[in-house]
Amino acid sequence: MSGNSIGNKFKLTTFGESHGAAIGGIIDGCPSNVVLDLDAVQLELDRRKPGQSKLVTQRKEADEVVFLSGIFEGKTLGTPIAFQINNTNSKSDDYDLLKDAFRPSHADFVYQQKYKHRDYRGGGRSSARETAARVVGGAIAKQIIKPVEIIAYVSSVGSISVNKKYTELNLSLTETNDVRCPDVEIAQKMEQLILETKKKGDTVGGVVTCVIKNVPIGLGEPVFDRLEANLAKAMLSINACKGFSFGSGFEGTKMFGSQHNDYFNEYGSTKTNFSGGIQGGISNGMDIYFDVAFKPVATLLQPQEMLTTNGTLEVIKGKGRHDACVLPRAVPIVEAMAALVIADFMV
Amino acid sequence: MSGNSIGNKFKLTTFGESHGAAIGGIIDGCPSNVVLDLDAVQLELDRRKPGQSKLVTQRKEADEVVFLSGIFEGKTLGTPIAFQINNTNSKSDDYDLLKDAFRPSHADFVYQQKYKHRDYRGGGRSSARETAARVVGGAIAKQIIKPVEIIAYVSSVGSISVNKKYTELNLSLTETNDVRCPDVEIAQKMEQLILETKKKGDTVGGVVTCVIKNVPIGLGEPVFDRLEANLAKAMLSINACKGFSFGSGFEGTKMFGSQHNDYFNEYGSTKTNFSGGIQGGISNGMDIYFDVAFKPVATLLQPQEMLTTNGTLEVIKGKGRHDACVLPRAVPIVEAMAALVIADFMV
Amino acid sequence: MSGNSIGNKFKLTTFGESHGAAIGGIIDGCPSNVVLDLDAVQLELDRRKPGQSKLVTQRKEADEVVFLSGIFEGKTLGTPIAFQINNTNSKSDDYDLLKDAFRPSHADFVYQQKYKHRDYRGGGRSSARETAARVVGGAIAKQIIKPVEIIAYVSSVGSISVNKKYTELNLSLTETNDVRCPDVEIAQKMEQLILETKKKGDTVGGVVTCVIKNVPIGLGEPVFDRLEANLAKAMLSINACKGFSFGSGFEGTKMFGSQHNDYFNEYGSTKTNFSGGIQGGISNGMDIYFDVAFKPVATLLQPQEMLTTNGTLEVIKGKGRHDACVLPRAVPIVEAMAALVIADFMV
Amino acid sequence: MSGNSIGNKFKLTTFGESHGAAIGGIIDGCPSNVVLDLDAVQLELDRRKPGQSKLVTQRKEADEVVFLSGIFEGKTLGTPIAFQINNTNSKSDDYDLLKDAFRPSHADFVYQQKYKHRDYRGGGRSSARETAARVVGGAIAKQIIKPVEIIAYVSSVGSISVNKKYTELNLSLTETNDVRCPDVEIAQKMEQLILETKKKGDTVGGVVTCVIKNVPIGLGEPVFDRLEANLAKAMLSINACKGFSFGSGFEGTKMFGSQHNDYFNEYGSTKTNFSGGIQGGISNGMDIYFDVAFKPVATLLQPQEMLTTNGTLEVIKGKGRHDACVLPRAVPIVEAMAALVIADFMV
Repeated sequence: MSGNSIGNKFKLTTFGESHGAAIGGIIDGCPSNVVLDLDAVQLELDRRKPGQSKLVTQRKEADEVVFLSGIFEGKTLGTPIAFQINNTNSKSDDYDLLKDAFRPSHADFVYQQKYKHRDYRGGGRSSARETAARVVGGAIAKQIIKPVEIIAYVSSVGSISVNKKYTELNLSLTETNDVRCPDVEIAQKMEQLILETKKKGDTVGGVVTCVIKNVPIGLGEPVFDRLEANLAKAMLSINACKGFSFGSGFEGTKMFGSQHNDYFNEYGSTKTNFSGGIQGGISNGMDIYFDVAFKPVATLLQPQEMLTTNGTLEVIKGKGRHDACVLPRAVPIVEAMAALVIADFMV
Repeated sequence: MSGNSIGNKFKLTTFGESHGAAIGGIIDGCPSNVVLDLDAVQLELDRRKPGQSKLVTQRKEADEVVFLSGIFEGKTLGTPIAFQINNTNSKSDDYDLLKDAFRPSHADFVYQQKYKHRDYRGGGRSSARETAARVVGGAIAKQIIKPVEIIAYVSSVGSISVNKKYTELNLSLTETNDVRCPDVEIAQKMEQLILETKKKGDTVGGVVTCVIKNVPIGLGEPVFDRLEANLAKAMLSINACKGFSFGSGFEGTKMFGSQHNDYFNEYGSTKTNFSGGIQGGISNGMDIYFDVAFKPVATLLQPQEMLTTNGTLEVIKGKGRHDACVLPRAVPIVEAMAALVIADFMV
Repeated sequence: MSGNSIGNKFKLTTFGESHGAAIGGIIDGCPSNVVLDLDAVQLELDRRKPGQSKLVTQRKEADEVVFLSGIFEGKTLGTPIAFQINNTNSKSDDYDLLKDAFRPSHADFVYQQKYKHRDYRGGGRSSARETAARVVGGAIAKQIIKPVEIIAYVSSVGSISVNKKYTELNLSLTETNDVRCPDVEIAQKMEQLILETKKKGDTVGGVVTCVIKNVPIGLGEPVFDRLEANLAKAMLSINACKGFSFGSGFEGTKMFGSQHNDYFNEYGSTKTNFSGGIQGGISNGMDIYFDVAFKPVATLLQPQEMLTTNGTLEVIKGKGRHDACVLPRAVPIVEAMAALVIADFMV
Repeated sequence: MSGNSIGNKFKLTTFGESHGAAIGGIIDGCPSNVVLDLDAVQLELDRRKPGQSKLVTQRKEADEVVFLSGIFEGKTLGTPIAFQINNTNSKSDDYDLLKDAFRPSHADFVYQQKYKHRDYRGGGRSSARETAARVVGGAIAKQIIKPVEIIAYVSSVGSISVNKKYTELNLSLTETNDVRCPDVEIAQKMEQLILETKKKGDTVGGVVTCVIKNVPIGLGEPVFDRLEANLAKAMLSINACKGFSFGSGFEGTKMFGSQHNDYFNEYGSTKTNFSGGIQGGISNGMDIYFDVAFKPVATLLQPQEMLTTNGTLEVIKGKGRHDACVLPRAVPIVEAMAALVIADFMV
């Protein structure tokens, strides 16, 4: 078990180090004879791309996806869909001084302990660059699961939060600002905080909220492969993710059952939706919604004390480019992971 | 894919409806030639058992586990360990009036939609009774992963919370009270709240905190099968679970990177532990700690509006016994699931 | 990976040592709302049972299957079906002298090397008794895959072979004799050979041929999970199996392509069937047929030289009961394994 | 389940259509910090390559493998190893007349039925070209499992067979002739038969024998994932494979147990090896040996009757290039599959 695959029936396997030749993946289990919109896949990738706005890392990567198999005359063959994104930013000399140092709160140290050999250039496989392959997989999944719709947005950055529920927001405003927050006033404050943080060479965390609409009844298996369990695993597999909650979440723990129960309308929909669209591990047809917590990125452009391979502690200043806040770029990744989970239950 | 198994190398498969002949399971992948303490397994099961205190459901179940295979002359054979717990409480007539009704926030409705046939007596497979099999599996896992130690406790009930970190608590006090809260003053308040809630026929939620100590460096796979991802999935697979966070969790999203980074001591331990013992999906040798949110139980002993199979809404009063608060009984279940996840990476 | 499960979607996991408390299994992935004929399951088990005729081992086992879950009001719930067969023959003292000896061509030696601890009574897990659980699983699979029909028969014992193809035989005669050979004249010769062999305390091998009729087009996945690959694995997982071939088999290697190609009729059936009903790993709707080779049973009732745990060689005479020829009892096992493979592709 | 992966711990996933952009794969689970000889991988690929001798198809393919990830500074990282072989022979117009025709004994018909859309150019995914990716995976596996050694050779072509056991042959002569048969006299006859067959536009089948030496005791899991079961599945997953037998094989079914049992030497080796190195599903340290049957290739350069998508039968003459006998090229493929199976049990 080495865990570079997700899904049982709609399975994505990813490969690639951040500063190797390429990253990419294989989707096994995609239904055949489906027309794929490959431009839509590239657009999703562009939403995750470095350099897309002043808020995100200015690392230059073209991030163009090329498909190698599984598609013929514009339609899926039902065979594996292999794809590749070449790594064009080879400025790996930025990382030379990290060859013998373990950055705090990075994977450097545990990789060295576990594998005895690591690609120290930019984190190699532990780099969030790996998530580009997930976005490709998720973009294809999104097309397979239609009319199910997945919409994520930034609901907090540091201590600045949207104080409305998703039902009170106009989610179509999400992509109108660089933060990807549908509450445009709050978005401005978030943007300011990110830019200030960036100026200091520091980073800040936040929360992404995700909503899944038009879900058919019956997705999920009732014991270990519950829909919420697979969503939780998918989200916690994203770099920097620290938590997942769905429906009433942690707040719901403070409620009484008489407040929390979702009473039925006739024909099976419910009057409230504290359950978050899932009961007994299985979708009940209501909206699914959940929160995903992200810690502040560990890469700082400040001098930091690092552990060296000699067992000494040394202050080293990070170079290069980084995200002061991953939240805007996390939005398409959360959507992609959700799409992969849903597709795995739908195909 | 029907999802009644968890784990790849140390795999537990469970079976059984709450009012069928028996529940139980098979553990596949247990190492051979290990002396097993079967009394310790029964003791874990007793911690989950109905009727153990005035705080929990008074349903009568002996919950005695019988082992059918995999153990010979007191030691594991490396072959599948099958076990069984007979269902002795057959008062299924309590449920007759639920044959044609779907309780709010239960799995009744989605089971009927998905499977077209269900065991309506007590929820059948969707009953939390299934978790008894998990506790047996986890109790064996605990013995396999020694000296790794797993300790869970109740950290909130409704709005009453322990306001200290686990490091400030004497965790050995957890089992001294029926709530299983190591802060004995808070425990008393929690107990009072549970009893009051019970008197009203209502229920209340809460949070379990879990700590894993003596973890070797290197557990977890860095992409999709991260240690935290598998823990999240395991926890979200428990009935009534609404959320999971580890290390700094949702609070950590409000911090700056310069505050959140865990700086190294020489030799690889860290001065702080916001990371919660996991970096890049892999254990770093520090304590792992996480929170698990539970909603209030949906079964109320109050009249509630239910949907009937005829598509009408009717007010029906629940009968029988129930947990006003699952938290005390959730503690051994959380520990069991954590042990299963850790064992899967250690064997 | 410990390999006590077969199937991905229709998955059987088995447990149990031959002289432990019980053997049994769990079927995960059985469709819901299917009426099951449990008497038919017991009848299949009776076809595998010791003591059913003078040709097979006289070991006394009731072999009564009990179902513990997954069935309610006569229909499947879609939840795991757990079942159990108690071991009633506890004459394990027959095996005391084998505690410190490794029988030739048995698993005793490799089990000791691999697991360091073994249940020496009758082979424990390596005993062919484990196949009883497969027959139960297969008997349920047979009901799920209707109208697909699976018929196996003994086509050779030692050097005595049926010299006709399955299409030239009246397969309904198979169960009219104890050998389970539809060519009744040949069956008599086989019976004589088995009885003579038994008298000498010796054993003899043979071949089972299996035919699958009414197969829908499209079963099988074209690369690694080909229909023939999964059948081969299933057959080679039966104790004492030494080989598998399908369609034209080893004889077909001597043919030229111009002789071997199966030309189409209109609408897709073929004029010949050297392909054995499978092309490119996928069923083409024609009959599937294959041969399964079984070596002579290793347990002899003759004095044999064994290796002892002290590293010496000693002549020891086997006691107890044994099959002089497994072929008659292998017939229902081959059918069961085929049914499990087909079900896994059909559910 | 779509079955484009093999292995649990050392897992190869392949992709690619014969006339698409590229074929290739991902190896997940390769141990870290191992020096890889990539030239040795290319050499294995050259053994499978078209055009390598006058006996095989003259289709022109460079078959150069490029590695994209998982290797850094010459050593494995423990991360996925992705690789790619570009398809340089794009003469797909040879196949235009097959767009609407289903060739006899090819996968064309079942692909169309199952997937409703297919890449008709050269068989697409059903082409044996896919096996090039397996050879790359196997070549890496071979390096991981050292000192285990895997040697295959052609033991029959049509009716011409090597009549000696592998122990009586000088296996180092295998690669001295184009047929890959270590009995050089027989090899000449085989070569003649292949060339004659080719001249007629016909094809012929045969058998590959494979030997695995230096196997550690203990590989294989005793019930469903037996070593021989996984080998059988791996072999039957190769295009055109019709059968598998190991050790005494089909001939062994004619023996008596008293002849067939392998008696021990002191210390656990055996005097004979009818068991073929496997007992109870587990390697016993003796040589493993097995036979793999291949039917004659279905592609003929003769006029053949085909079924058209209109449901009519038409005589069409195949164009282009083909193998008159796959046996010489099957040798490295059999070795690769064996290496993948062994690696999966050893890592």
